[in-house]
Amino acid sequence: MTKALQQGATIGILGGGQLGRMLSVAASRLGFKTHIFEPGANPPAGHVADAVTTAPYSDHDALTAFANSVDVITFEFENIPTQALDVLEKLRPVLPARNALATSQDRIVEKEFLSGLGLNVAPFANVETAEDLSTAVATVGTPSILKTRRFGYDGKGQARLKTNDDAQAAWDALGNTPCVLEGFIDFSHEVSVIGARSQSGEVVCYDPGENVHRDGILHTTTLPATLNVSQRMDAVLLTGKVLNALDYVGVMGVELFVTPAGLIVNEIAPRVHNSGHWTQNGCVIDQFEQHIRAVAGWPLGDGTRHSNVVMTNLIGDEVLDVVKLSSDANIGLHLYGKADAKPGRKMGHVNKITGPVN
Amino acid sequence: MTKALQQGATIGILGGGQLGRMLSVAASRLGFKTHIFEPGANPPAGHVADAVTTAPYSDHDALTAFANSVDVITFEFENIPTQALDVLEKLRPVLPARNALATSQDRIVEKEFLSGLGLNVAPFANVETAEDLSTAVATVGTPSILKTRRFGYDGKGQARLKTNDDAQAAWDALGNTPCVLEGFIDFSHEVSVIGARSQSGEVVCYDPGENVHRDGILHTTTLPATLNVSQRMDAVLLTGKVLNALDYVGVMGVELFVTPAGLIVNEIAPRVHNSGHWTQNGCVIDQFEQHIRAVAGWPLGDGTRHSNVVMTNLIGDEVLDVVKLSSDANIGLHLYGKADAKPGRKMGHVNKITGPVN
Repeated sequence: MTKALQQGATIGILGGGQLGRMLSVAASRLGFKTHIFEPGANPPAGHVADAVTTAPYSDHDALTAFANSVDVITFEFENIPTQALDVLEKLRPVLPARNALATSQDRIVEKEFLSGLGLNVAPFANVETAEDLSTAVATVGTPSILKTRRFGYDGKGQARLKTNDDAQAAWDALGNTPCVLEGFIDFSHEVSVIGARSQSGEVVCYDPGENVHRDGILHTTTLPATLNVSQRMDAVLLTGKVLNALDYVGVMGVELFVTPAGLIVNEIAPRVHNSGHWTQNGCVIDQFEQHIRAVAGWPLGDGTRHSNVVMTNLIGDEVLDVVKLSSDANIGLHLYGKADAKPGRKMGHVNKITGPVN
Repeated sequence: MTKALQQGATIGILGGGQLGRMLSVAASRLGFKTHIFEPGANPPAGHVADAVTTAPYSDHDALTAFANSVDVITFEFENIPTQALDVLEKLRPVLPARNALATSQDRIVEKEFLSGLGLNVAPFANVETAEDLSTAVATVGTPSILKTRRFGYDGKGQARLKTNDDAQAAWDALGNTPCVLEGFIDFSHEVSVIGARSQSGEVVCYDPGENVHRDGILHTTTLPATLNVSQRMDAVLLTGKVLNALDYVGVMGVELFVTPAGLIVNEIAPRVHNSGHWTQNGCVIDQFEQHIRAVAGWPLGDGTRHSNVVMTNLIGDEVLDVVKLSSDANIGLHLYGKADAKPGRKMGHVNKITGPVN
């Protein structure tokens, strides 16, 4: 695909959660329609989409009709079943492309890819059996973290090993599924870079944000992050390296641990990212529009930040504070229209402007 | 209605054009769904709405079903047929309320209302017959402008009288319909204030913007406007006066002529306004969200402007420049997804950030 999509074109989005919702709104600003493909009923993205298909990813006919109704396909989550991609890719461009999904879907493949680029990752070992785990503990040591190779998110699919004695319990807790054992990193804080790459290979990165998690879920992202000039430069350069190595098209989130020895890449997410939500109120062009521009074959927007921002997720009942929060002069509200405020569920977020960039 | 609408509530919007589209996007940020009522097929607002009813305003059943499906009703245009309001008002709150519509739908009623508040308006006279016009020309003089009392927008329904001899031609051009003759105002420039009033009577105004028209259609709005401190204060205070006098709920656009003798009110629009589009990139909370907050019974947001902005409408073919414009680092794009770029049709707008507010 080399031509920029024109007014009235339709962008297909796999996944109908809050990321799909905000992608859909961004697409509307550029004059595009969206069509959401989502197995679950009443998806948040459906409230602001031109069309919604409710079907499982195994439904060949539904996938075919969906692909035929759109001009390009993108997604809000990385765990798209391979068989679904097989169907979609034959009919329309899927961006970001499969190599990025394959890399990020499997923690071992991801770490080998990143190491191969000369980037620092945590010490790791592949664990497919209980015997592998013993070997891994011997190599990587403890404390360490056992993580499932696939389908982990928001701290799910992880178990800590404080000492070697915890190994068997961790292995059982994760269900004897292929894992990676990661050495514990003594990091001072986590930052992330939201980078974008266009179809013509242009790369634009937003300023790194500093992330704080609570109960395994992102709690806040603060701009600017605590980084010196050289760390900030490193963070952006390594993100560009990852984007170029994958010949990537779209927005990617790159999570980094800050250590005295330098930056260590925790993981990459081939999609718009919760830690990039601050861009909605801190920049002229936010990560959602940036992603749509990339997949639509448009020039990327500038990533310049005009304001300092603290993004705070509203989890579960915290969304009940929203009318109170709405009277704060400097808060931008972003709610996802989810009816049921279950514990641990991301219901919305707020971007608090804390001042202009100096 | 005294309770704030909760997450998942539905806001009904009469009119499916670009204003309805941007209201719908703003509603989504607050977790609301929207239902668009629009006689025309494939309305721009429908691309980002949860539901669309395509029916004429004379369709009693469609209006009833629409009203029953929503929690509150608002609109993107002021010329809503009275009979439609009769149906809707019995079922759900319609905000802003009917008195504001009645006032702004008729230029004579509007001018009498504004004069009654002690505000300056152009000299005017009611013209219902050719004889009235002779009398009006004698009173108001020339140059002057004959305008239809109702249904005027974007310079339509207007004819200029350079001299008294133009009277008959102007009257014929407008089709012998009830008109107002307005005295020509020698103004240096036009500004407008976007004001908002909440259900609890709180008033918030954005900074005045300076408007330039081309071929009768708004071309640019520039922030800050050329106004001295006392003019800026006057503009905001008189807007508050209008909002309070109408016990208004929602966003209103107030167009003002700047003259050496002070500000003269040109007209008021009981809705979000083209000259307020700059707020999307100049403020944390834009005019569309402000309007949704008001009709939803929420506290208003702060109207503080963080950036200087020039908004430029993209009319007809100008939308073809959009990919070129998209590479400007400081431009926020807002396209309406209209398929057909007819001459004179508003296809989108761009907000160019020209710098931070000092």
